[in-house]
Amino acid sequence: MRILVLGGDGYLGWPTALHLSSRGHDVAVVDNFARREYDLEMGVDSIVPIAGLQRRCDVWREVSGIEVPCYVGDLVDPDFTHRVIREFRPDTVVHFAEQRSAPYSMIDQKHAVYTQVNNVVNTLNVLYAIAEIDPSIHLVKLGTMGEYGTPNIDIEEGFLEVTHKGRTDILPFPKQPHSFYHLSKVHDTHNITFACRVWGLRSTDLHQGVVYGQETPETAQHPELATRLDYDGVFGTVINRFCAQAVVGHPITVYGKGGQTRGMLDIRDTLACVELACLNPADQGEYRVFNQFTESFSVLDVAHMVVEAFSGSPEIVHLDSPRVEKDEHYYNAIHTKFLDLGLQPHLMSAETLASIMEVIAQFKDRVDPRAFEATVNWRHTTNHLPTSGTLLPR
Amino acid sequence: MRILVLGGDGYLGWPTALHLSSRGHDVAVVDNFARREYDLEMGVDSIVPIAGLQRRCDVWREVSGIEVPCYVGDLVDPDFTHRVIREFRPDTVVHFAEQRSAPYSMIDQKHAVYTQVNNVVNTLNVLYAIAEIDPSIHLVKLGTMGEYGTPNIDIEEGFLEVTHKGRTDILPFPKQPHSFYHLSKVHDTHNITFACRVWGLRSTDLHQGVVYGQETPETAQHPELATRLDYDGVFGTVINRFCAQAVVGHPITVYGKGGQTRGMLDIRDTLACVELACLNPADQGEYRVFNQFTESFSVLDVAHMVVEAFSGSPEIVHLDSPRVEKDEHYYNAIHTKFLDLGLQPHLMSAETLASIMEVIAQFKDRVDPRAFEATVNWRHTTNHLPTSGTLLPR
Repeated sequence: MRILVLGGDGYLGWPTALHLSSRGHDVAVVDNFARREYDLEMGVDSIVPIAGLQRRCDVWREVSGIEVPCYVGDLVDPDFTHRVIREFRPDTVVHFAEQRSAPYSMIDQKHAVYTQVNNVVNTLNVLYAIAEIDPSIHLVKLGTMGEYGTPNIDIEEGFLEVTHKGRTDILPFPKQPHSFYHLSKVHDTHNITFACRVWGLRSTDLHQGVVYGQETPETAQHPELATRLDYDGVFGTVINRFCAQAVVGHPITVYGKGGQTRGMLDIRDTLACVELACLNPADQGEYRVFNQFTESFSVLDVAHMVVEAFSGSPEIVHLDSPRVEKDEHYYNAIHTKFLDLGLQPHLMSAETLASIMEVIAQFKDRVDPRAFEATVNWRHTTNHLPTSGTLLPR
Repeated sequence: MRILVLGGDGYLGWPTALHLSSRGHDVAVVDNFARREYDLEMGVDSIVPIAGLQRRCDVWREVSGIEVPCYVGDLVDPDFTHRVIREFRPDTVVHFAEQRSAPYSMIDQKHAVYTQVNNVVNTLNVLYAIAEIDPSIHLVKLGTMGEYGTPNIDIEEGFLEVTHKGRTDILPFPKQPHSFYHLSKVHDTHNITFACRVWGLRSTDLHQGVVYGQETPETAQHPELATRLDYDGVFGTVINRFCAQAVVGHPITVYGKGGQTRGMLDIRDTLACVELACLNPADQGEYRVFNQFTESFSVLDVAHMVVEAFSGSPEIVHLDSPRVEKDEHYYNAIHTKFLDLGLQPHLMSAETLASIMEVIAQFKDRVDPRAFEATVNWRHTTNHLPTSGTLLPR
């Protein structure tokens, strides 16, 4: 299968591309290096050093004998998007190429507008390109479990059967996202649903949970195949950030009571899920949603698991939450579709957490403790980051 | 009350500004003349000739003795948006300033992207400006009944109580819009809801139906106070377009079976609804939705009403629908909130239709019959308009 991975230089895009390549698919990657620019802008960096994209592809060819072409450009440019899809002619487009940090989108007006325009426009361009070049191309799109928010009912996979005043319909699951980033994914969801309806496209929208971990069987084959690992308050997701705090002897910082419960998954399961979605495509004209996570944990649960897995005795501290979200709420999200397709989850374990901390320990000098700070406050319309100079408008 | 009308040069923005001004409010208008540029781009024009905005304001001062300041600029520019709101310091912002044509948004990729970026970014800018300058400013935002699509259950006003697997919550009403334009309004709805939650703003989102009519008590006071009247296949809404077809002896063109049913309202009721929303603001932190229409009709109903109201005998023809939407469906939309606030609707009547046709008859030489054509086909990703030269990318 020919698979084009958009955002193939990122935390998940790169190991996904390698995984698909190692599984015998013809893979190409696309990136504009926006993620690396955010690091420069904010004065932080991946804990694990990462090679440039072209170098990564060279090393993969040396290690595996397989060529992964890379296209460098911006999918917000419709001509570039068309050219890449026309030239590579994929069977499947896997779309990771979005600004994916909630705090980044909440820094100020410019970052909110950038996030929504970048994410919505590049997805529109991908939809137009597929519709014009070959509507049978299957779009596998990275959405987020954060689109749902925390309703007081079970979260189904994308749709909800509603009976109201004696009549019944199956409707899109109502969305109550928690940031301008999560909102951008909700906007995408609506746009993709519409494109499937009017142009007969087919798409699988992966409503993904919070991913943890760094090493995959393919990235472990060479240091220059490593993917990034973020620990900072803006791009570091909760488990990875807690592991980094433990390793460098920083208190583990829980926002509020820590009752915020989210679906989570091991990075290796992300790779497996994406391949399962590619191999079992949506029908022509179909828009479907798979909830892509394996277990639900509260933030405080995760903090305790990290404490237990670490050999030292990290302190857990509760900070006023910089976000506006419930820190105690009902949460029961359904996630059977990938299990039905045969997913064998890597469930959370002390070994997994220890292996993440082992990776971090190798590069602990690269951690800047100032970057742990939760400096982006949802209630403020302008935020300043301690690690950055004056933030440049993009 | 100080009221700033964004999009105050448009079909509804202008008569709303005059209505609010005549009712004793301090009104200012903002516009970037995008709507007039669409006319130039497409080679069509309002049936009723309209004066420039500054001239309109001058005439209103001569007629009423009241000053309505106008600010010329683009709300996509955050500095302009801030400056206007800071300078005028309204109690209420009434936001009409969006690209509002479904067919225009479906012309091609550039028009889809333009519509979504323009509408979403200018609304984000308004939200940021209000949050920063004075969160007590009430945002009265023009949404559309088209956000809901045509679900097989009753359409409630913005929210739906759902009981699912024994648990109950009140959730945003699921949205299934029919064009990239309608999608842009859904995106706004989600963004505004979020801003009310995190910043404590307050907003009333008017999910408005299809408006018909042209004359209001204020615009009728001088020919240079007239508002525009569109009849073309891109910007002409269904009743106004059918009236124009009848007057110039063109067949009345119904798409498909004509069973598409929509909420509709008289232009004078738009004005009354906006004032009612201003006078009865949302609570601080509240996001609420009012369904703003007075009656539901199918497209075929409307065609027959126009035929009956016209002195000639116009022919009704059924065309293949250029849109992708059901032409037979369930439709029952609730609209009690404005009635509870005291709205006295102008219900559809032969007299109203006759008065619209009378206005059109005065300027019938300005109608270009080619412009009736339904040239924007939802199934095509690129459309060409008969009245335009080569469409310039915006």
